[in-house]
Amino acid sequence: MIIVLKEKIAENVAKIEKLFAGQKQIFVHRNRVAVVGASLADLPAEIKQAATELIDKTPAAVQASRLFHPENTVIKTAHSLIGAANMTIMAGPCSVESQEHIFKMAQVAKQGGATVLRGGAFKPRTSPYSFQGLGEAGLKYLRAAADENEMDVITEVMDDEHVPLVAKYTDIFQIGARNMQNFSLLKAVGQTKIPVALKRGMSATIDDLLNAAEYIAAGGNQQIMLIERGIRTFDNKYTRNTFDIGAVPVLQQLTHYPVIVDPSHAAGYWDLVTPLAVAGIAAGASGVIVEIHDDPAHAFSDGPQALKPAAYQVMAQHCQQVQQLVASWK
Amino acid sequence: MIIVLKEKIAENVAKIEKLFAGQKQIFVHRNRVAVVGASLADLPAEIKQAATELIDKTPAAVQASRLFHPENTVIKTAHSLIGAANMTIMAGPCSVESQEHIFKMAQVAKQGGATVLRGGAFKPRTSPYSFQGLGEAGLKYLRAAADENEMDVITEVMDDEHVPLVAKYTDIFQIGARNMQNFSLLKAVGQTKIPVALKRGMSATIDDLLNAAEYIAAGGNQQIMLIERGIRTFDNKYTRNTFDIGAVPVLQQLTHYPVIVDPSHAAGYWDLVTPLAVAGIAAGASGVIVEIHDDPAHAFSDGPQALKPAAYQVMAQHCQQVQQLVASWK
Amino acid sequence: MIIVLKEKIAENVAKIEKLFAGQKQIFVHRNRVAVVGASLADLPAEIKQAATELIDKTPAAVQASRLFHPENTVIKTAHSLIGAANMTIMAGPCSVESQEHIFKMAQVAKQGGATVLRGGAFKPRTSPYSFQGLGEAGLKYLRAAADENEMDVITEVMDDEHVPLVAKYTDIFQIGARNMQNFSLLKAVGQTKIPVALKRGMSATIDDLLNAAEYIAAGGNQQIMLIERGIRTFDNKYTRNTFDIGAVPVLQQLTHYPVIVDPSHAAGYWDLVTPLAVAGIAAGASGVIVEIHDDPAHAFSDGPQALKPAAYQVMAQHCQQVQQLVASWK
Amino acid sequence: MIIVLKEKIAENVAKIEKLFAGQKQIFVHRNRVAVVGASLADLPAEIKQAATELIDKTPAAVQASRLFHPENTVIKTAHSLIGAANMTIMAGPCSVESQEHIFKMAQVAKQGGATVLRGGAFKPRTSPYSFQGLGEAGLKYLRAAADENEMDVITEVMDDEHVPLVAKYTDIFQIGARNMQNFSLLKAVGQTKIPVALKRGMSATIDDLLNAAEYIAAGGNQQIMLIERGIRTFDNKYTRNTFDIGAVPVLQQLTHYPVIVDPSHAAGYWDLVTPLAVAGIAAGASGVIVEIHDDPAHAFSDGPQALKPAAYQVMAQHCQQVQQLVASWK
Repeated sequence: MIIVLKEKIAENVAKIEKLFAGQKQIFVHRNRVAVVGASLADLPAEIKQAATELIDKTPAAVQASRLFHPENTVIKTAHSLIGAANMTIMAGPCSVESQEHIFKMAQVAKQGGATVLRGGAFKPRTSPYSFQGLGEAGLKYLRAAADENEMDVITEVMDDEHVPLVAKYTDIFQIGARNMQNFSLLKAVGQTKIPVALKRGMSATIDDLLNAAEYIAAGGNQQIMLIERGIRTFDNKYTRNTFDIGAVPVLQQLTHYPVIVDPSHAAGYWDLVTPLAVAGIAAGASGVIVEIHDDPAHAFSDGPQALKPAAYQVMAQHCQQVQQLVASWK
Repeated sequence: MIIVLKEKIAENVAKIEKLFAGQKQIFVHRNRVAVVGASLADLPAEIKQAATELIDKTPAAVQASRLFHPENTVIKTAHSLIGAANMTIMAGPCSVESQEHIFKMAQVAKQGGATVLRGGAFKPRTSPYSFQGLGEAGLKYLRAAADENEMDVITEVMDDEHVPLVAKYTDIFQIGARNMQNFSLLKAVGQTKIPVALKRGMSATIDDLLNAAEYIAAGGNQQIMLIERGIRTFDNKYTRNTFDIGAVPVLQQLTHYPVIVDPSHAAGYWDLVTPLAVAGIAAGASGVIVEIHDDPAHAFSDGPQALKPAAYQVMAQHCQQVQQLVASWK
Repeated sequence: MIIVLKEKIAENVAKIEKLFAGQKQIFVHRNRVAVVGASLADLPAEIKQAATELIDKTPAAVQASRLFHPENTVIKTAHSLIGAANMTIMAGPCSVESQEHIFKMAQVAKQGGATVLRGGAFKPRTSPYSFQGLGEAGLKYLRAAADENEMDVITEVMDDEHVPLVAKYTDIFQIGARNMQNFSLLKAVGQTKIPVALKRGMSATIDDLLNAAEYIAAGGNQQIMLIERGIRTFDNKYTRNTFDIGAVPVLQQLTHYPVIVDPSHAAGYWDLVTPLAVAGIAAGASGVIVEIHDDPAHAFSDGPQALKPAAYQVMAQHCQQVQQLVASWK
Repeated sequence: MIIVLKEKIAENVAKIEKLFAGQKQIFVHRNRVAVVGASLADLPAEIKQAATELIDKTPAAVQASRLFHPENTVIKTAHSLIGAANMTIMAGPCSVESQEHIFKMAQVAKQGGATVLRGGAFKPRTSPYSFQGLGEAGLKYLRAAADENEMDVITEVMDDEHVPLVAKYTDIFQIGARNMQNFSLLKAVGQTKIPVALKRGMSATIDDLLNAAEYIAAGGNQQIMLIERGIRTFDNKYTRNTFDIGAVPVLQQLTHYPVIVDPSHAAGYWDLVTPLAVAGIAAGASGVIVEIHDDPAHAFSDGPQALKPAAYQVMAQHCQQVQQLVASWK
């Protein structure tokens, strides 16, 4: 249940905490108190009277819910504001391939307006015999390339043991689609104070995604953004995944966390990336994360979906124009 | 195969027709000749020399393909231009409910900029015990309401026997998602000269959709537009279907037929319709078809997804703004 | 609602009919009365007292439901009993290819224990340029081949106009997956007294399938069997469709109509057909419908999924053994 | 590529190893040598002559493939033989709930013929606020209950850090569906000598599953079994997942690893478990893993899908009868 208090908030919060101490998990946000698994029948009349609203049926992912946290979350990093009316571009190669290459790509990303540099140092590859990433060396190059261009870093962390290592280099943890329900990993990043970008699993429902986010929030870290990157459906001849654009407005209704779209993985082919990116922004997303490469044919991974520098600049410009239009509607 | 002729076109077309007469189906578009099921090995050197391009592997839906017909098809009706850089709005209630109601809705539709009035007189309902439509009376009201407002009519035809009846009243046949592979019906509308709006089936691949269009084209009717209206996936708690926005740019690469989006059926809930509509236009669609109703709670069918008049005006305005922006990119 | 009467049944049925005459559709089965769209609140106390059970919430497909018709439906044709503890084999080529060929195949089918001969004379092909069937000539050959071997005929009818023609030759109408929601066709076969085999659409839910059956029943024809033939999912590299074997026991819980499995279309490859056939019978299906061919490489359609005669005999034998085992459990 | 040697095997293997040393990964099984990412063009004529078969195109998951390892893998544990013609029953509660309860359930499992006791001590729950398992205490109870009944233990390990702990208590590691592509975890269990039961992810293709298995094999552990437990599709009203029974014969064609079916998670409801279990065995699976509970209404997790003891005995008996029938066909 969620109790929306109208007066003597600290006092009433204390009463509620005392009432359920040791039995139920309690979360407090401003004048709202969520008690996991409790129902209004458990609440004394006195507290009911201090409330403007009592919500009995609450979603399992209660901290993620706008019922508990109505206003948009905006995540602040050194170089970015992510969420609400802001439009963030995150760009970079799929893999960090070399020091020289990531520096080159960072410059390209920056020119297009990106404030966050992406690049994988630990790669979740379908086959164990594919390139698995440069590891810590890759993280170092990525950090240096971002610093050189006054950008933030986003990079994937693949297991809980790597969290401290990756934390040394990144501004945003990325949790990959395949790990969306790796609960040990979610708990580990939930223990940090570093923002987390959680990618939707290939067959994760909206509720699954929000519950995965709740694992992070339950650890005390509410700096969460959600990434729609396409889902698995019966049709995958011309696109790698099916971009579930309906998830963008649905998530914005349900949760206060920023929603970012990843048209690169959704499309799988570079010439579909820009239409999907602008569509995502038009639908209300707070940003895009895209893959870029100067020589896609020789990319270490995911070449077919990488935008070349010139195409990326066009995409970035179009996204910004759409975002301005969308902002004018509010 | 497709033969792209460079000179003496009529003469060479005649030769090709003679060569395959009675054995293969042949289609001619300007300087392009498609021979279904034939391969370049069947072609004499003389004709090969008259060609600028010889395409051996061609899609089954060859008339739909840009390889055969590179330039966009634009469909002209009394009040609309559908395709290419045009943006068409089609709006109206799910069902024609009464003469009075459809006149009222037509006015609303027109005010938002719609040039095509939609409304069902024969309804494909999941249950035989649900409202099945007003039949011919509904068609009459719909026609009169459109005429009064100088609009075109689009309405669903559900079986081949009804084609002559519906043809008396409509400017555009709509083939519903459930009938996308009702081949008798496709053949029947293919025999007419009336434009056809073909809705993608709930689990139809892109190739299935193009092959269904080919059934219409094979009868001689190339006035075809394709409607993306959402597909069935594992996630249908918050949306009725999954809007496959990637299908918009994919179809535009593969085919010359106009692509229209139906955010009403994709979303299933009115408050998601506008984000999906603008996203569809941003991704490059040539128009939207939406359901409107002044009293959704009492609509005869599909009330939850109907836009009220005010919300529809906003959607129409936003779509037009996005379309102008998209047009500026070309 | 459904009213289960305990006494004075005819008298009470008459009262209920009078009560809802002209307003609601009423169906009667033995001592059970279904009133579509009515609720118990509409029922006088007097009738409530005459009931042993009152079911307020009923599925839309009420005639299909075991709540209305608890005992299994068994369909009797000249040579077959379909449903309940019977195990029916339906076999034959995908298409009727020639008089000689269908006679040969009929003999093979019969030897394996099939009592129903299948074969398509009107073929629903994805492409308009593929072989579309022999038409009425095919129906004649099929009928003659079945008669020669004392078998029943099952063949597809593709549109409502063809119903009278196909009715002259067949014992069972087959409604194809693509036409499962071709409501005009469903209504047309519902007007006949000929049994109907309704194939589940590629993305039809269980409820969609039962509602489609209800269109047939609503016309007065309750001789319906349901065919599970695989659904569309994300995984179609090694199988043509995903055989939804869970649908077999689910349908048996919900409906009294016989459930038949079609492992040929589910698998798409002949060497997977037998494992799926026996699995279907083990899960409780009342029969199988399979495609056979003596020369699959040269079949007019669907060659890869056709069983050669020897493999078919093995499949038939295994199915019979599994069915005996299943019967011993009851 | 795979090279099938006919003579002087050790000598030729040594030559191949020398040839690709430091560049390519090489795996040897009897007279077969797989070289990952190499092609026949890289092979000297001399070695080609020593081969009976040269396979250039090989699947990414080469160690899993029957091309590399044609004969069935049979996994031996203290109390079970898993794979080939053996039929293994694994049964137990979803969660280890208490010492007393797991002892009681172990006895029930054993009576039905199970040789492996299942039970979760670390539970991957969708919500962070749900019961997460008893942890090491649960492992102890589970081990003791299995020992008391001379059974093996299977239990889930959720992250790589827990591998040493779980290894102390289990005979078989279970990797859950949500962790099927948790590559760190796969690598960690691949470093052990303990058999691994890998559950198919909810939207994992057959190839994804085999590649996940390859991560385990790449570490040196080929004691792998694969579990089909249902996939996500559009239809989940009457079943929790869609049991992809076609995966059973498909996997048996492609890989030598034993295939086990999990009808409990596929069905989601206890009354569908037995039909799916027997169907799985009929389709050729080497065993079943099922959830049992004496009081499902009060189970800590997944109560609705648990078989009560009596129903479980029936299921076990039916599976054994089907397995005997299937064995008689070989």
